[in-house]
Amino acid sequence: MSFTYNRIDKDKAMLLVVDHQEGLFQLARDQNPTVMKQHILAHAELAKVFGLPTILTTSAETGPNGPLPAEVIALHPEAPFIKRNGEVNAWDNPDFKAAVEAIAQTGRNQVILAGITTDVCTAFLALSLREAGFSVFANSDASGTFNAKTASEANDRMRAAGVQVLSLFAVACELMRDWRNTPGATQLLPFFDKYLPEYGFLARAHDAAIQNGTQSGL
Amino acid sequence: MSFTYNRIDKDKAMLLVVDHQEGLFQLARDQNPTVMKQHILAHAELAKVFGLPTILTTSAETGPNGPLPAEVIALHPEAPFIKRNGEVNAWDNPDFKAAVEAIAQTGRNQVILAGITTDVCTAFLALSLREAGFSVFANSDASGTFNAKTASEANDRMRAAGVQVLSLFAVACELMRDWRNTPGATQLLPFFDKYLPEYGFLARAHDAAIQNGTQSGL
Amino acid sequence: MSFTYNRIDKDKAMLLVVDHQEGLFQLARDQNPTVMKQHILAHAELAKVFGLPTILTTSAETGPNGPLPAEVIALHPEAPFIKRNGEVNAWDNPDFKAAVEAIAQTGRNQVILAGITTDVCTAFLALSLREAGFSVFANSDASGTFNAKTASEANDRMRAAGVQVLSLFAVACELMRDWRNTPGATQLLPFFDKYLPEYGFLARAHDAAIQNGTQSGL
Amino acid sequence: MSFTYNRIDKDKAMLLVVDHQEGLFQLARDQNPTVMKQHILAHAELAKVFGLPTILTTSAETGPNGPLPAEVIALHPEAPFIKRNGEVNAWDNPDFKAAVEAIAQTGRNQVILAGITTDVCTAFLALSLREAGFSVFANSDASGTFNAKTASEANDRMRAAGVQVLSLFAVACELMRDWRNTPGATQLLPFFDKYLPEYGFLARAHDAAIQNGTQSGL
Amino acid sequence: MSFTYNRIDKDKAMLLVVDHQEGLFQLARDQNPTVMKQHILAHAELAKVFGLPTILTTSAETGPNGPLPAEVIALHPEAPFIKRNGEVNAWDNPDFKAAVEAIAQTGRNQVILAGITTDVCTAFLALSLREAGFSVFANSDASGTFNAKTASEANDRMRAAGVQVLSLFAVACELMRDWRNTPGATQLLPFFDKYLPEYGFLARAHDAAIQNGTQSGL
Amino acid sequence: MSFTYNRIDKDKAMLLVVDHQEGLFQLARDQNPTVMKQHILAHAELAKVFGLPTILTTSAETGPNGPLPAEVIALHPEAPFIKRNGEVNAWDNPDFKAAVEAIAQTGRNQVILAGITTDVCTAFLALSLREAGFSVFANSDASGTFNAKTASEANDRMRAAGVQVLSLFAVACELMRDWRNTPGATQLLPFFDKYLPEYGFLARAHDAAIQNGTQSGL
Amino acid sequence: MSFTYNRIDKDKAMLLVVDHQEGLFQLARDQNPTVMKQHILAHAELAKVFGLPTILTTSAETGPNGPLPAEVIALHPEAPFIKRNGEVNAWDNPDFKAAVEAIAQTGRNQVILAGITTDVCTAFLALSLREAGFSVFANSDASGTFNAKTASEANDRMRAAGVQVLSLFAVACELMRDWRNTPGATQLLPFFDKYLPEYGFLARAHDAAIQNGTQSGL
Amino acid sequence: MSFTYNRIDKDKAMLLVVDHQEGLFQLARDQNPTVMKQHILAHAELAKVFGLPTILTTSAETGPNGPLPAEVIALHPEAPFIKRNGEVNAWDNPDFKAAVEAIAQTGRNQVILAGITTDVCTAFLALSLREAGFSVFANSDASGTFNAKTASEANDRMRAAGVQVLSLFAVACELMRDWRNTPGATQLLPFFDKYLPEYGFLARAHDAAIQNGTQSGL
Repeated sequence: MSFTYNRIDKDKAMLLVVDHQEGLFQLARDQNPTVMKQHILAHAELAKVFGLPTILTTSAETGPNGPLPAEVIALHPEAPFIKRNGEVNAWDNPDFKAAVEAIAQTGRNQVILAGITTDVCTAFLALSLREAGFSVFANSDASGTFNAKTASEANDRMRAAGVQVLSLFAVACELMRDWRNTPGATQLLPFFDKYLPEYGFLARAHDAAIQNGTQSGL
Repeated sequence: MSFTYNRIDKDKAMLLVVDHQEGLFQLARDQNPTVMKQHILAHAELAKVFGLPTILTTSAETGPNGPLPAEVIALHPEAPFIKRNGEVNAWDNPDFKAAVEAIAQTGRNQVILAGITTDVCTAFLALSLREAGFSVFANSDASGTFNAKTASEANDRMRAAGVQVLSLFAVACELMRDWRNTPGATQLLPFFDKYLPEYGFLARAHDAAIQNGTQSGL
Repeated sequence: MSFTYNRIDKDKAMLLVVDHQEGLFQLARDQNPTVMKQHILAHAELAKVFGLPTILTTSAETGPNGPLPAEVIALHPEAPFIKRNGEVNAWDNPDFKAAVEAIAQTGRNQVILAGITTDVCTAFLALSLREAGFSVFANSDASGTFNAKTASEANDRMRAAGVQVLSLFAVACELMRDWRNTPGATQLLPFFDKYLPEYGFLARAHDAAIQNGTQSGL
Repeated sequence: MSFTYNRIDKDKAMLLVVDHQEGLFQLARDQNPTVMKQHILAHAELAKVFGLPTILTTSAETGPNGPLPAEVIALHPEAPFIKRNGEVNAWDNPDFKAAVEAIAQTGRNQVILAGITTDVCTAFLALSLREAGFSVFANSDASGTFNAKTASEANDRMRAAGVQVLSLFAVACELMRDWRNTPGATQLLPFFDKYLPEYGFLARAHDAAIQNGTQSGL
Repeated sequence: MSFTYNRIDKDKAMLLVVDHQEGLFQLARDQNPTVMKQHILAHAELAKVFGLPTILTTSAETGPNGPLPAEVIALHPEAPFIKRNGEVNAWDNPDFKAAVEAIAQTGRNQVILAGITTDVCTAFLALSLREAGFSVFANSDASGTFNAKTASEANDRMRAAGVQVLSLFAVACELMRDWRNTPGATQLLPFFDKYLPEYGFLARAHDAAIQNGTQSGL
Repeated sequence: MSFTYNRIDKDKAMLLVVDHQEGLFQLARDQNPTVMKQHILAHAELAKVFGLPTILTTSAETGPNGPLPAEVIALHPEAPFIKRNGEVNAWDNPDFKAAVEAIAQTGRNQVILAGITTDVCTAFLALSLREAGFSVFANSDASGTFNAKTASEANDRMRAAGVQVLSLFAVACELMRDWRNTPGATQLLPFFDKYLPEYGFLARAHDAAIQNGTQSGL
Repeated sequence: MSFTYNRIDKDKAMLLVVDHQEGLFQLARDQNPTVMKQHILAHAELAKVFGLPTILTTSAETGPNGPLPAEVIALHPEAPFIKRNGEVNAWDNPDFKAAVEAIAQTGRNQVILAGITTDVCTAFLALSLREAGFSVFANSDASGTFNAKTASEANDRMRAAGVQVLSLFAVACELMRDWRNTPGATQLLPFFDKYLPEYGFLARAHDAAIQNGTQSGL
Repeated sequence: MSFTYNRIDKDKAMLLVVDHQEGLFQLARDQNPTVMKQHILAHAELAKVFGLPTILTTSAETGPNGPLPAEVIALHPEAPFIKRNGEVNAWDNPDFKAAVEAIAQTGRNQVILAGITTDVCTAFLALSLREAGFSVFANSDASGTFNAKTASEANDRMRAAGVQVLSLFAVACELMRDWRNTPGATQLLPFFDKYLPEYGFLARAHDAAIQNGTQSGL
């Protein structure tokens, strides 16, 4: 049995922020809300760190779904921001589809995405992207839905269509590949400091030791 | 790997209410009964909201199985209502089969269904519909049975036959597709207010904020 | 061992609706939201059914906490409605305290209460009421908080102060005592039909059998 | 994807009672023993109700395995009763095999079976029957074994061989198909009254309501 | 530390069947319904077996609560049967109270009881009986309610009032005390055969061995 | 039963930050690290928000325990910062003890504390403070240790000594008491936005609705 | 706080084998049956090893309860063997009571016991022995009953009466006290080899090493 | 409520190594064996680090219980080493008791102990020590037994007798009290490096950073 490892390539990827809206956030009850918020911010910041072409999209944001967090918008002031007034599946929105296709024409056919809810906003779009021939990578940490059973079934549905379902950390590391790259350590360390505090505090303590440390005497 | 996304199309779909009877309700012990009742009402109302050709069917309803909830009947006064006096599998009832086929001849070969019990009323019919060539979408939230193990095994049996097993929310959103459609936001918001109170209270609080809100000062 | 059974007496009880607000509802994640909503409505309706002196109170309702559900307000148009602009513990609000004491002076020293969140809105008030000498009955089904651990610890803290923590059904039945009373069956059956569908569908199927039933032949 | 629904046909089926012996019963610890006994009796009674050709078989019944329950034997006084003195897999017993083949020659190639233990008596025979070309339906409720893990693994092994693993209720309903058939409601209602008390009490209360009920007033 | 063992005495005990009605049965979801039914029948039959003064009581039985199972009534044709038209707590019914007190005046101050629901019908009555000075023994196997959490909390509430909460088997054995008594083995073996099949099949296999057994050769 | 409600009073309380160091953080594995970091920051910020006299303390911070997070220090530039070079139990450090006593002499005998690890840094100090006569409130959300079992046992040990173990939210609300106070809503909303995103996003969406919202049309 | 350690003394103890019968064994479903059998044999052998006055008792052993395992009887050929023909609680049997009292008059007021079922045979006797003033030690490993919940409740009931509930190993070690005693290592090693294979195989490997071992070269 | 904090004092404590033998080690299955070994070594080394008078004791060590690990013996070449040839409870050995009492007469009445098995070797001795008036601290991490249930019950039994059950880390920190003490950091860091690798690797990385580190650039 032969196997081809299709991994994320920062030069071939784009990133989609799908309906990470402050109202819809209340529906995502399959993760601790503090963790969910950090995952949303990290997802958007990944694209910033790697200079990935990014598309923001919201659904009916002046209604109860609410706006994207200001932090997300501030990261991507130049990105196409498709405010869908109606389409549930972003692929049904011609502007969104055109924005994706425009990026694709620059040689990028890998799509990293996450959204709320997993079973609707993430899955519907992921399935359409697969049908359209894209390689699709779902950042599962940054998607949320009503409960764990629904999340699991939605991830299964996506997998059955060839979607790769990955963690935030795996997405970040497949993108970076080498700490000496640009982006590499200089860009990713502040990223991990914010979103992986077990790593961030390690780095901070390390730097403090160099600046001001005393040998433990061990 | 090529993939075709076969999604529910409100112009190609019909909806079946299968034996959601007040007596049989007592057999559905794999969900909290309050949640189960809401899922039953939501299933029927989905068809109303989307104007889907709908068929109601009951099994021996003057006996202990009991009638459909009045709320369900009131939603579909014009729908074919096949009161099976005997057939367990609705597909064995010529009137029911004819009713389905009559709708199919209008170009609708997608069937959304749910029933009590999952392993008998839902599964038997779903399997027969698959054999007859229909695309079948089982609303798993609106089916119930004796216990979770039986529900899981019945869902597995249906998936093995090519049935798509979906949540209520995914069914609703695949049907609507666009909030600006008719049916769209105007019809679906009251629907979600009833059946997804985490969304309904979000919308109510949103509207209250516009009418009467004071800035939090955040 | 002697024992005195201190049970709720509809002529000695008042009921408090504490911060069951549409925004705060999103914080109550220790119950399924559909069940939580029904418990909130049922709590308020209990007072209506039994003619209990009732006090509604909200915290900063024009802000993000949001209003009470319209259904709750509609049930108690004449009740004192203390819109606290600031006090977290309702007992710290002089109007609320005066409203409770005014009812107490009519011979009612039993207080039934529920609120969001359990550990703050319910518990703080319950502890203050105990300190003030009231018999306190916490409807545990109608209180919600961040997670089950917090709910359990808050219930334990209340029990340690002499609060009785009861289910919705036990509260309703201790209040009614006799189906022939007014309020009795005529008032409670529609109540149970709404909030305990396993009972409601039982009653509906029963009535249908009388009107239109055929012997099962068993 | 085409699909053929292979369902139980009472005119093509036979039923096997495999080692449901009173001694072996003590080994079946994956179900509550009260429930297990009811499932054993129900399995045998299904064949009686539907007039299915039935074969009883025991293993070394004068030894510690013990006899079949008298209720089971009384249901099938005319059935071939193969008292195996040695063979664990009933298919290895020439008399048993001949009895099955004799029935098969009357046009019945569907076999419904259950036994103790699931992993030995049921599974060994089921696998041999599949090899011999039969359609096999394992009544999972009426088989028992040492623990739930062993039951689940045995069911998986049978499924892999093309055995359909069904609940008692699904078997009964696929056999009956129509409540108006003979056997139908007249025969099955007493059956469900004995073995599914949630349904039996529903029917009894229904009949009582017709005879003597008063409107609830709901 | 001195200890007094207060055990059930068949000459000092009465037994109460409280609202074991066919409709209310549907509300008892903390036990498998097959097991629950057997426990209900066993509870009533215990009184028959031991000749305990027994009181049957129902709540609004011509309504949806439904009648007692015919098997229960048939066991106690002469027992006072208090059909409460309204009182939830049977102790509030003067006829029921008088019936209990009439038995108490014959020297019986121990009360064995069970009912549906545990938190209302069993607990309310048990607490009132404790307040009235009775020794109270709750047959926990024969009481049922909405879920296990409610059952556990209701049992705790009863224990805190001095109620002894016992299993069916312990109640039976404290009543019998000696297999040679009347009632003793002659009466109890058929009882255990019905309600404890692990014991019944043991006894049957034992008897079969005597009649027809061959040495296993162990 | 009389009851006195001993609640936190911002005019009688001080807050202690105990060894929330970036190295020790790696030992706190009983909570998700993202949540743990937020709880550490929230604990320190509570004191800032309420102007509580605060004492920071670290243990051997130039060694592997590492420094406090810069965010914590920045919140309390004027606070006594006792860098213990050796004492494990901060109470054994004369400067720390003097700092606590100096605050106590201003009429503050309530101490809110949290630290890493729960069983050593928090518990040792809490027990010493209880011995010294203080009212002690342990913020359980902001303490961490090796595993959940150790956390639970340490909390139990503290409770046994009269320590009140509370959640972050309860501590914040007992301190604030009234949203109109200073500190009140103006100060607490940004606090909850950071540390309780389910509340923060609720507030943000609320404000967005007022500024820019469109009626949902519900 | 002063504390007195009341420990088993082989010169003050007697041991009771209560209804460890081969039929009743089938009712003991709260332990793996392989482990349960070893615990039964170990319990009886403990008395043999320590020369404890022992009383065997059975209930209706020619009936389905069956005999004691031959291994148990063979261990105690001289022991009083009270074959109760009827009494459930062995204390109600005059011969059994006399046998216990005869031993007690030799200065032995400690009773070690175990039986099937825990809630009836063990608990009833233990409670009566406590009432009669004995120190009672229940070997919990060697008692069995219908399920773990019943076992736990029965152990709690015994503890509440002052019974010490101990493991087999703790009973054995409190009896032996010293490996050089008689009984000591010579007697206990074969005992542990049989009943604690983790210890037995250790001892065997130890001895094998002495006889025939080659250095591992570690 | 007044409270006295009774904490370990290195000048008042002795430490007991009880039957941490290589053979008995196989019986301790309530912890991962790698972790258990580290806890055994750490327990012995604690006494070395703090210069605590220490007593080693083994039970029948030339038999299958086996010797103490050489590492443990090497740590305490001068310690009284009581090789019990028989007594299970070390307190029953006159030499052991004399050794403890000799240390006690130097003003040390606190005893830290751990052993295998928890329920026998640790608990029996701990209970005897309590009876003899000692303050007893059980290092729960360094005791092991057959399973977690037995460990928990043994810890409960000890607590009920006034034993303090603590983690290894809490014992070490109560002993050290101050990192500058002797023993302090110099002695404890290598200790934690060996036994708490999450701390040890933190310290190593810290030192490495000082010696050879490069700023992460964060």
